[in-house]
Amino acid sequence: MELLKERIRKDGKIKSGDVLKVDSFLNHQMDTDLFVEIGKEFKRRFADAEVNKILTIEASGIGIACLVAQSFHVPVVFAKKTQTKNIAGDVYTTKVQSYTHGRIYDIIVAKEFLGKGDKVLLIDDFLANGKALEGLIALVEESGAELVGAGIVIEKGFQVGGDALRKRGVRLESLAIIESMDEETGRIVFRDDEEGSGTV
Amino acid sequence: MELLKERIRKDGKIKSGDVLKVDSFLNHQMDTDLFVEIGKEFKRRFADAEVNKILTIEASGIGIACLVAQSFHVPVVFAKKTQTKNIAGDVYTTKVQSYTHGRIYDIIVAKEFLGKGDKVLLIDDFLANGKALEGLIALVEESGAELVGAGIVIEKGFQVGGDALRKRGVRLESLAIIESMDEETGRIVFRDDEEGSGTV
Repeated sequence: MELLKERIRKDGKIKSGDVLKVDSFLNHQMDTDLFVEIGKEFKRRFADAEVNKILTIEASGIGIACLVAQSFHVPVVFAKKTQTKNIAGDVYTTKVQSYTHGRIYDIIVAKEFLGKGDKVLLIDDFLANGKALEGLIALVEESGAELVGAGIVIEKGFQVGGDALRKRGVRLESLAIIESMDEETGRIVFRDDEEGSGTV
Repeated sequence: MELLKERIRKDGKIKSGDVLKVDSFLNHQMDTDLFVEIGKEFKRRFADAEVNKILTIEASGIGIACLVAQSFHVPVVFAKKTQTKNIAGDVYTTKVQSYTHGRIYDIIVAKEFLGKGDKVLLIDDFLANGKALEGLIALVEESGAELVGAGIVIEKGFQVGGDALRKRGVRLESLAIIESMDEETGRIVFRDDEEGSGTV
């Protein structure tokens, strides 16, 4: 998605430890007009799929998922990262290891909001090692719902998550796949870039 | 907002401890078509205000804020609840006590996304004791931005938060103010209800 890649080149900041900061438009401050375009693009890519529910994970996936849902006209469910007293005990749950924080946490979805008959599109802002997405897939499988696929805004193609999920047969659509990035030069190369067009 | 009140009467579940569960459409599963209508209503109520930024707090405020932003055509910033390594040290921060969880946590907003020149509308799903909203107001004041007001989807009018904020002079617009609710009968009375119309 060219609009997104341009925005990443313009406003993304490469930090040490393979961190790409896109918090000026994606996951702290959020450009919701861009999210609408992202929603249209996912709708185009999953036009043949009968999606009737979008599943994401708190926190930064929620805003994108809600605007993607406007293109699909389906409800959004977000998996919660810790058990609160407002959630009944009747939940699907699995454990996820956070790439950003390094710790393991539980994710939960109330059973009443996911189950047989649901055709689920997963939406998230980032895909790196794929642990969050694997957790969401485990919840979908546990619930008996059908996994349609996963829509990711930015995939770090140099990490293992995306290709591992593709090998598993997950229909994965990433709008920008970063093949490499260089903290010193600020150069970002996208997977489907033509030779040399990946410069800032 | 009558559409919202009808939905609360239809799908809200009253639990012990003054808990109103609206997680089938508001804060776990999210009816984004309803959120669009909520956005239009906030736009109507704040039509005279020159809002140029929406501030909310993770997690359940984000989806609503993003669809409200579609009515205002402004970016959304969400306050994060714990410090992650992806946030630079240059942040506004304050402490908030959670009504739901009972614990105290830090909320942070990166300084680059809030400051002088910003005319900020706060958006959140719930207002009960008002601690989260007070925390957001503290961040706005610390940043030098201008607080335009706060838009709340559901206010628990029988708790102290809303009226305390109104006494402080905060322009507070709550789309449904619950005056009382009864776990046994399921009866919910809204503040501006006519006599007897508050029954389920």
